[in-house]
Amino acid sequence: WARAVRGLLLDVSGVLYDSGGDGGVPIAGSVEAVRRIKASGLKLRFCTNETQATREKFVKKLQGMGFDISVAEVTAPAPAACRILKERSLRPHLLVHNDLVPEFAEIDKADPNCVVIGDAAENFTYANLNEAFRVLIGMEKPVLISLGRGRYYKETDGLKLDVGAYMKALEYACDVQAEVVGKPAKMFFESALAEMGLPPEQALMIGDDIVNDVGGAQRCGMRALQVRTGKYRPCDENHPHVKPDAYVNNLAEAVDIILQQL
Amino acid sequence: WARAVRGLLLDVSGVLYDSGGDGGVPIAGSVEAVRRIKASGLKLRFCTNETQATREKFVKKLQGMGFDISVAEVTAPAPAACRILKERSLRPHLLVHNDLVPEFAEIDKADPNCVVIGDAAENFTYANLNEAFRVLIGMEKPVLISLGRGRYYKETDGLKLDVGAYMKALEYACDVQAEVVGKPAKMFFESALAEMGLPPEQALMIGDDIVNDVGGAQRCGMRALQVRTGKYRPCDENHPHVKPDAYVNNLAEAVDIILQQL
Repeated sequence: WARAVRGLLLDVSGVLYDSGGDGGVPIAGSVEAVRRIKASGLKLRFCTNETQATREKFVKKLQGMGFDISVAEVTAPAPAACRILKERSLRPHLLVHNDLVPEFAEIDKADPNCVVIGDAAENFTYANLNEAFRVLIGMEKPVLISLGRGRYYKETDGLKLDVGAYMKALEYACDVQAEVVGKPAKMFFESALAEMGLPPEQALMIGDDIVNDVGGAQRCGMRALQVRTGKYRPCDENHPHVKPDAYVNNLAEAVDIILQQL
Repeated sequence: WARAVRGLLLDVSGVLYDSGGDGGVPIAGSVEAVRRIKASGLKLRFCTNETQATREKFVKKLQGMGFDISVAEVTAPAPAACRILKERSLRPHLLVHNDLVPEFAEIDKADPNCVVIGDAAENFTYANLNEAFRVLIGMEKPVLISLGRGRYYKETDGLKLDVGAYMKALEYACDVQAEVVGKPAKMFFESALAEMGLPPEQALMIGDDIVNDVGGAQRCGMRALQVRTGKYRPCDENHPHVKPDAYVNNLAEAVDIILQQL
């Protein structure tokens, strides 16, 4: 699986670091692994479904942990959603994290004709969910755009429901199908490939999420590894539909093997 | 459709009364209609998916509106769930309305091995949803019992997401299928029939919900009417899957016709 790789797509949370109340802790060897990728000449994109912060804030946090990363290297759902909103003249009602709102600064939000849902975390209140529902059910043809379809993620104080769960609640209540903008949407991976200027056969995705990272990348024709860090669980290795090209214990081990093949 | 009926199953909200911020208002003729059913010797069960209050509280509210009703005549999801919990030695983590908790007073809730979800309303907080999720995902074989599958309902201050939406969120996050205890579950109607001691052919359901009342009862072999009160909407008369045995303007009209046939 490691042969003829010219570019890497790295998931961030659970691969580079474990998130937590105090911001997060780098996973052992990951800071050095990113440095080694960059030194090797391999192309690199950080592909995150993170929607709890602007890319600026997100990158600053990672830099604070020692990672060599810049905003221009990050593929994320909010900018992808903004492109769609502009193209289709959609005015969103936002159900997102407060810290993500600045990503939509340029977007007209008056008299909404769609709902955009992200990982709103503490903003997923009963009142806010009912409000988003009422906006949606009041439309002649409800449009729901979801910044990902993740089921859950891990923080230091435990597992948390991700945007996908709340998306399903609204889908069911309004009898509508959400348009998913983040991983595992094909368009999302294709954007990252375009940004690297590589065909899928030359790219390798490394993630901790069997469905959104591994399955999504493979459906685009890329190879994909699952790391045994982050949200990885042993039962992932018996997943009924998705089989990674390989498992590695962590990012550092993956990078060791890839660099040996260069 | 009115011939050889020996027992009636009545939905409550939308058939007997319209709910609202101040408790509710009887639908014209319904108080008298219940009295006439009882005087006729027909068997009678009140079948509700109400899970925001104990049956005691619920019945007291109806008595306050003038209805002749007692707790023993009510078939509701919480007692049905309690029977299942006891039969299968399940210890629930409850995500329900505070006012429903007393229905589970006799049930062992230590070291939970299932989650029971009802219309928790204000208790559907981010923290409570995450907690129910963590309990569920932590089980080797997650068991989720849902006290209904309603999508939404109307209150005086607007539409609210119902238990079905939150059920879908947990189903998706844990990759599990909920067991639904309230209407339209077959077991729910079968309990009501058993309580009346009647076979389905001799029973008639009267409800305002085309899917949960009419469709559910018909799938058990009963006849079923839809009233044009409560959540009834004219488009229900073109429902793609469910066709009531008859429409009536309200409960009083149904009772008139049934009593003429006795």
